[in-house]
Amino acid sequence: MSKSRKFYLEDIPLDEAWRRFITAMESSGAWARVPGEELPLEKALGRVTAAPVWAALSSPGYHASAMDGYAVRSADTLGATETAPKRLRIGPERQAEYVDTGDPIPSWADAVIQIEHTQNVDEGAAGKFIEILASVAPWTAVRPMGEDMVATELVLPANHLLKPVDLGALSGCGHATVSVRRRPRVAVIPTGTELVTVEQAAQSGLKSGDIIEYNSLVLASQVRQWGGEPTRYPIVVDDYERIRDKVREAAATHDLILVNAGSSAGSEDFTASIVEELGTLLVHGVAIRPGHPVVLGTVTDRRTPIIGVPGYPVSCALTGEIFVEPLISHWLGLPQREKPGLKAVISRKLLSPMGEDEWVRVTVGRVGKRTVAAPLSRGAGVITSLVRADGIVRIPRFSEGVEAGQEVTVELYRDPADIDRTIVHIGSHDLCLDILAQYLADDGLLFSSANAGSLGGLTALRRGDSHLAGSHLLDPSTGEYNIAYVRQYLPSTPVVVMTFMHREQGLIVAPGNPKGIRGLADLARDDVRFVNRQRGAGTRVLLDYHLNRLGMKHEEVKGYRREEYTHLAVAVAVQSGAADCGLGIAAAAHALELDFIPFEKERYDLVIPRIHYESPLLKPLFDLIHGPVLRKAISDLPGYDITAMGNIVIEL
Amino acid sequence: MSKSRKFYLEDIPLDEAWRRFITAMESSGAWARVPGEELPLEKALGRVTAAPVWAALSSPGYHASAMDGYAVRSADTLGATETAPKRLRIGPERQAEYVDTGDPIPSWADAVIQIEHTQNVDEGAAGKFIEILASVAPWTAVRPMGEDMVATELVLPANHLLKPVDLGALSGCGHATVSVRRRPRVAVIPTGTELVTVEQAAQSGLKSGDIIEYNSLVLASQVRQWGGEPTRYPIVVDDYERIRDKVREAAATHDLILVNAGSSAGSEDFTASIVEELGTLLVHGVAIRPGHPVVLGTVTDRRTPIIGVPGYPVSCALTGEIFVEPLISHWLGLPQREKPGLKAVISRKLLSPMGEDEWVRVTVGRVGKRTVAAPLSRGAGVITSLVRADGIVRIPRFSEGVEAGQEVTVELYRDPADIDRTIVHIGSHDLCLDILAQYLADDGLLFSSANAGSLGGLTALRRGDSHLAGSHLLDPSTGEYNIAYVRQYLPSTPVVVMTFMHREQGLIVAPGNPKGIRGLADLARDDVRFVNRQRGAGTRVLLDYHLNRLGMKHEEVKGYRREEYTHLAVAVAVQSGAADCGLGIAAAAHALELDFIPFEKERYDLVIPRIHYESPLLKPLFDLIHGPVLRKAISDLPGYDITAMGNIVIEL
Repeated sequence: MSKSRKFYLEDIPLDEAWRRFITAMESSGAWARVPGEELPLEKALGRVTAAPVWAALSSPGYHASAMDGYAVRSADTLGATETAPKRLRIGPERQAEYVDTGDPIPSWADAVIQIEHTQNVDEGAAGKFIEILASVAPWTAVRPMGEDMVATELVLPANHLLKPVDLGALSGCGHATVSVRRRPRVAVIPTGTELVTVEQAAQSGLKSGDIIEYNSLVLASQVRQWGGEPTRYPIVVDDYERIRDKVREAAATHDLILVNAGSSAGSEDFTASIVEELGTLLVHGVAIRPGHPVVLGTVTDRRTPIIGVPGYPVSCALTGEIFVEPLISHWLGLPQREKPGLKAVISRKLLSPMGEDEWVRVTVGRVGKRTVAAPLSRGAGVITSLVRADGIVRIPRFSEGVEAGQEVTVELYRDPADIDRTIVHIGSHDLCLDILAQYLADDGLLFSSANAGSLGGLTALRRGDSHLAGSHLLDPSTGEYNIAYVRQYLPSTPVVVMTFMHREQGLIVAPGNPKGIRGLADLARDDVRFVNRQRGAGTRVLLDYHLNRLGMKHEEVKGYRREEYTHLAVAVAVQSGAADCGLGIAAAAHALELDFIPFEKERYDLVIPRIHYESPLLKPLFDLIHGPVLRKAISDLPGYDITAMGNIVIEL
Repeated sequence: MSKSRKFYLEDIPLDEAWRRFITAMESSGAWARVPGEELPLEKALGRVTAAPVWAALSSPGYHASAMDGYAVRSADTLGATETAPKRLRIGPERQAEYVDTGDPIPSWADAVIQIEHTQNVDEGAAGKFIEILASVAPWTAVRPMGEDMVATELVLPANHLLKPVDLGALSGCGHATVSVRRRPRVAVIPTGTELVTVEQAAQSGLKSGDIIEYNSLVLASQVRQWGGEPTRYPIVVDDYERIRDKVREAAATHDLILVNAGSSAGSEDFTASIVEELGTLLVHGVAIRPGHPVVLGTVTDRRTPIIGVPGYPVSCALTGEIFVEPLISHWLGLPQREKPGLKAVISRKLLSPMGEDEWVRVTVGRVGKRTVAAPLSRGAGVITSLVRADGIVRIPRFSEGVEAGQEVTVELYRDPADIDRTIVHIGSHDLCLDILAQYLADDGLLFSSANAGSLGGLTALRRGDSHLAGSHLLDPSTGEYNIAYVRQYLPSTPVVVMTFMHREQGLIVAPGNPKGIRGLADLARDDVRFVNRQRGAGTRVLLDYHLNRLGMKHEEVKGYRREEYTHLAVAVAVQSGAADCGLGIAAAAHALELDFIPFEKERYDLVIPRIHYESPLLKPLFDLIHGPVLRKAISDLPGYDITAMGNIVIEL
């Protein structure tokens, strides 16, 4: 038994890691498809046939009338026309018998004449008669027995994903049940002393160091979505023996074990050692990013496959996609599902990591004729980068990275049609954009917003990466907002500048303002740590403008170089005590219950190239801006003024 | 109350029918989205958010170490290098503290130095020290509080379909539950005196006139697949009052009612009258095919929307797709799902029905560079046409139909990638092709086989519609199979002719051969009704060859003009008593336990253009033909001889 700490993590290429894993499963029998179980059809939707199904009965089971009308002998109808109808007897020694659609035709009949071609039902002493106004060929309007399925015929192959109509066909040919592959059983074991459940967090709050455990929820949900049956174990603390015993227990009843976190080579990373003790460690470390510290192996006498899944949420979810989904699909007999691919140009340069395949999360927008993929955060801890991702761009190892504007293939998480109903905003961040997104969602539109700052937004417009940009750039020479910048950055693009709203900018400080900060001059104090916004942000332009007016130098401001990308990030830096103040909007201070020292009401405009301003895609957005509902919602927020909302500032 | 029979069925264009239905729902409030219900996250996968979700907690909830290493003050590290390490004290008045990835950093620290850049933990009288080999900038290797989500930030919009990672994000920002739209409740009421359940059929068999009820299973499964909650009612007999009462009962607790069958204008079609009595009949008859007799209305004081769904299985399933899916999607707040579209050429001419939109089921194959859509049966009773369909081609009303070779857009039921792994066979029908398909499915390949007869198969090859053709065409002048026909039909295409197997052809007759048929000469008897194969079928060529040898004329054979398209269809015609005999293969007679009078062992070849013969797609097929497994499976069937299997007859 090895509990000794290992610093060593390999860098096995993904295909080689797979090869080792599959080879081990082939030799143990674990690579075989899962066996079948007999289910009633009502429970079989979305399951996979374990064997071919042959018709037990013919359908229809008899020669059936395809219309409402009279079953006849076709020979009896010869020569009948509208002008020369023929009489056929109903009743004894009959020549005609009424049938509804679906009724069996009598054995003496070989055709059906539809009711519209008959008339004059005439009841006399000689019996009951009809007149027919047309002749019919043999087998007219008859669905022959077995037209749909003949008993013994193949109805569905094995490895077939059951759709609603498939269940109908199985029923129709006499099967009340069907043999489908049982769901592969996957144990998901979350480990970590620092972990708490979200229920605990929601009830009792979090202590510093507590982490809400949700990777097991993501993994279990993935397993379920892909057709497996997950068992989500309770959290196991970082204790070698306890984790090992839980793995051993799970191995007895599962097809696959996922141990979450502890897959790296740190002091409390036990997975690799446990796999070594209980079975065979095949791979420790795969050359992929995110997701490098993956463990692959088999454990116990059953040689149950086990995956040590890394703890960072993005690494965890991608490990599911890369390793677990193909396994489940294979066990079920389904083809490896490929995501729809879409060609797009990448909005900014991506450096390639050395020797590792990288999965980059991107948003995708259709802007005019360009399809643009914009990379999201590459941080493995940022689950929202996966939540917001429209797809993944894979950068293969040893590639030279991707230049801005280069074409890439995006593997889409969404329906490609979703891309066409997405409005792409790149620019300054404001809470009101989230509110706007809500109302657009009600209209079935998606609003993709990337926080690149005001200048970043204008640059993105110039590249053709976005439909519009929120901007609040103060021109120091005139005190006017945005116009000078738009002229400079988009000199040859016809654009409309429309005011979205005015908003309060000011200093965000801790509750009660413990440092007694009263204005920008206090930023020069030695005991005041500032947190800044990134270069290109309108708020930073505003800061520089005012520092300049006050004759203050950047070096005088402690923390001038610490950059955050959103108002809320600035506010949280103050909330956490990492900084004493930052410049930002009132809404951000209010959201985190911080104090706020206002000093400027600024205009926040939307800059929209005319070609998009006039496009049908954006029309609902302008309808909202001109309507009462959005105005009401925004004016209810602290620190906003909607008086000028929708005003055209200038058309350039 | 009107129970009077109506012969009148309207022909309302689909968009007008929709407009009426939606307008009525808007005025009653039934067009509103369904309300939300609060669910634990474990149960929320695949559900739709009923409201936007804002972060309840920040994540991380503190400044967290991004690595295993030592938390330090960045200022203390200034100047440290490998050659000039700096000593930092651990413990009281500390300058460094060990942290694992994810641990909070102490409040005095502002950076983490990774463990690989430290060394020499040295315990002396002065305390515990480490040496650091590099300096770090402020906030290096620290994930700031709120890096992923800041409390109050928008995490998910409303109307968002919850994926596994979304559940992770919700958990991570402190939500243990989420408000999702409750599933729209849909009542499915099957009606019809002739209906029996498949359980009854499987237990007690079917009487003539019995129909297995499965439309309600298809509709309920569709509803479930699209996110609704179906209630599948027991079968109601054709009784106006009983159906009406069941509708009234369902209206009280459902968002939508589907009454299956009885939607037309026949003597037992009650739906329209019931809707009229209980509420408002909006539409009776829509200009679509299949699916014309659709009823739309609202019933009872609740003005519950109701759809009378036609009884033919294909009409029923398509009515679900056309009317029910968009309603459920709308109620859930999801966009109308569009099937992926694929451009293809249609393999044969389609006449357009007068004034109706037609939905044509097609199979789709990628043959070389052509993507070919081959229409399936247009019979509304043939559910297998939907089971086998790869997609739908819509022919709009008042179009002039579609010419063979014309480009159409197929709305795919499958993943487009499935089309690329499909081998397309058009040609003569044989059971062995189904067996072959089974083994190909194990390799992840799909085998699409259309029964067009041997000549039809060669014609399809000439058009480039298929990869290969099964053929058993006897050349009367030489007694040789296939070669002369291939030379004639494919004069300029390099092809390989490979023998699949030999098989017994003969006369299929009822058990015990009650008519004492001994050979083809008996077909001239007045009391013998024959059933023939379609023009172009190899079996018909064989018949004509032998009739000619015997000096018999077609007119002498009663039933010569009655055509079936498969051996099994011929066999079932004999089984049902519709014919006394037909020409076909031993396997078909055997399958239906009929008697068989053999008279010819024929060669059945596969004709494969060389370009496909050499393609990787077809390689697994030839591997199977040359391997032992398929041979064993086919030689176990009655009437087959595999001696020549895989032999190349000729390369042309």
